[in-house]
Amino acid sequence: MSRTAIIAGTGPLPGLLVAALSARGEDFVLAEMEGFAAAVPGLAPIRFRLERLVPFLDHLAGLDVARVVFAGAIRRPRIEAELFDPRTATLVPQILAALRSGDDGALGAAIAIFEEAGFAVVGADALVPDLAPGPGLLAGRPTAADKADVACAVAIVAALGRLDIGQGAVVAQGLCLAVEALPGTDAMLAFVTAQAGLRPDPAGARGVLYKAPKPGQDRRVDLPMLGAGTLRAAHAAGLAGIAWEAGGVILADRAAMVAEAAALGLFLWSRAR
Amino acid sequence: MSRTAIIAGTGPLPGLLVAALSARGEDFVLAEMEGFAAAVPGLAPIRFRLERLVPFLDHLAGLDVARVVFAGAIRRPRIEAELFDPRTATLVPQILAALRSGDDGALGAAIAIFEEAGFAVVGADALVPDLAPGPGLLAGRPTAADKADVACAVAIVAALGRLDIGQGAVVAQGLCLAVEALPGTDAMLAFVTAQAGLRPDPAGARGVLYKAPKPGQDRRVDLPMLGAGTLRAAHAAGLAGIAWEAGGVILADRAAMVAEAAALGLFLWSRAR
Repeated sequence: MSRTAIIAGTGPLPGLLVAALSARGEDFVLAEMEGFAAAVPGLAPIRFRLERLVPFLDHLAGLDVARVVFAGAIRRPRIEAELFDPRTATLVPQILAALRSGDDGALGAAIAIFEEAGFAVVGADALVPDLAPGPGLLAGRPTAADKADVACAVAIVAALGRLDIGQGAVVAQGLCLAVEALPGTDAMLAFVTAQAGLRPDPAGARGVLYKAPKPGQDRRVDLPMLGAGTLRAAHAAGLAGIAWEAGGVILADRAAMVAEAAALGLFLWSRAR
Repeated sequence: MSRTAIIAGTGPLPGLLVAALSARGEDFVLAEMEGFAAAVPGLAPIRFRLERLVPFLDHLAGLDVARVVFAGAIRRPRIEAELFDPRTATLVPQILAALRSGDDGALGAAIAIFEEAGFAVVGADALVPDLAPGPGLLAGRPTAADKADVACAVAIVAALGRLDIGQGAVVAQGLCLAVEALPGTDAMLAFVTAQAGLRPDPAGARGVLYKAPKPGQDRRVDLPMLGAGTLRAAHAAGLAGIAWEAGGVILADRAAMVAEAAALGLFLWSRAR
């Protein structure tokens, strides 16, 4: 049976996929871009550079890899022109255009290059469906005011996603306290924590974090993630809970999040679109 | 000749209007909502409460006020139901709906109430046209990359404004570093300062702050403002300059900003729509 290649970026997703595939007894290879810290301790990854992408694709094919999953965000690498091999050099226009075109464009271009090389590109949630929970309440219970805040955040995140700038927002009492941009969710929550006292009614709704993929986003790359760290940061920011688009967000550690949400009194709501 | 009433909120705008009207020898009255710090040192304002709005409007008419200008943001006040006078009580549905409807809705409702009481509501920029500069470069010169970042920020701010969440964004190298929400421009710039090192190319474009009114916004209320403090914060955040929609943004202290921008090497660009 042919193998799966995990193209590991930052965050916990590579480790989650390694654990799930190992538990199922499936064979895989782990690949990481040079210049980034090891994604999964104890495993020696295949290292690759964007400037030598074509030889890397050949190497994967030689290892009987048929299926590729992009796991975790890959920071834009610096390109060193003198390192290009001749065949990858023919992809330079495609690569440079991708790096200039925003997150979605860059990831779409990466998928296209792998598919043209004959690999199937699958999403982490397709490979391990348990990672992205479907609709349901996982912890606590949002109030009517919390639900109104979530509905407001849903509209904001949808509009932001169309601009390719982030996948989250914090709304309290109908007011947008913060919007996620390049620095990410943790930075946004730290910002909200530092801006305490903005809610007009101190006794009113405490606010919500909402996360969703960008509208029209290719679900095979870079789904938003939530983890126990996000939960603690949301608690520190004084929020009532976290909601996300059901099926569109990966939970890094569902059991720990649910337990901690219950202990901290936050709701966790996987909200049907 | 009838008088102008300046309804003073926070920030430097009330003081700028007082100075400009005084210099022109025009008569005015200054009014402030109870519970907020004095907007213009040395002047004793008429104090009013939202719960006694109708008696306040009568008082203004008795002072021969014909024209009203809203100057500076007014934080949402807490309403104490027992303080309503009978006539203002008839406006309660209108007032509460306004307070729930986001910034634009609240300000639109305020304008409607003053207009129904027979006052002309004018914008600060209509009263003192010099406050909101027309198209032109006031300091420095944006590079082509800076202009591309501004164009990107223009699209983001337009989309955000349609959602009634803020009037600014920071973009560097085509990437959105931050979006303005309720906490305002200074908080956004402090956030960018704390997130140093995000720009993919350390030698590339340093990024821009762009400000604009919300699309379709009634220009008579709450135009975005820029001042020397914003300029210093933009410099601290490592930005190349500040751009804004020409005619749609008030400069608190144009001469000081231009001098300081030249000293710090930032551009100031009042960009035609």
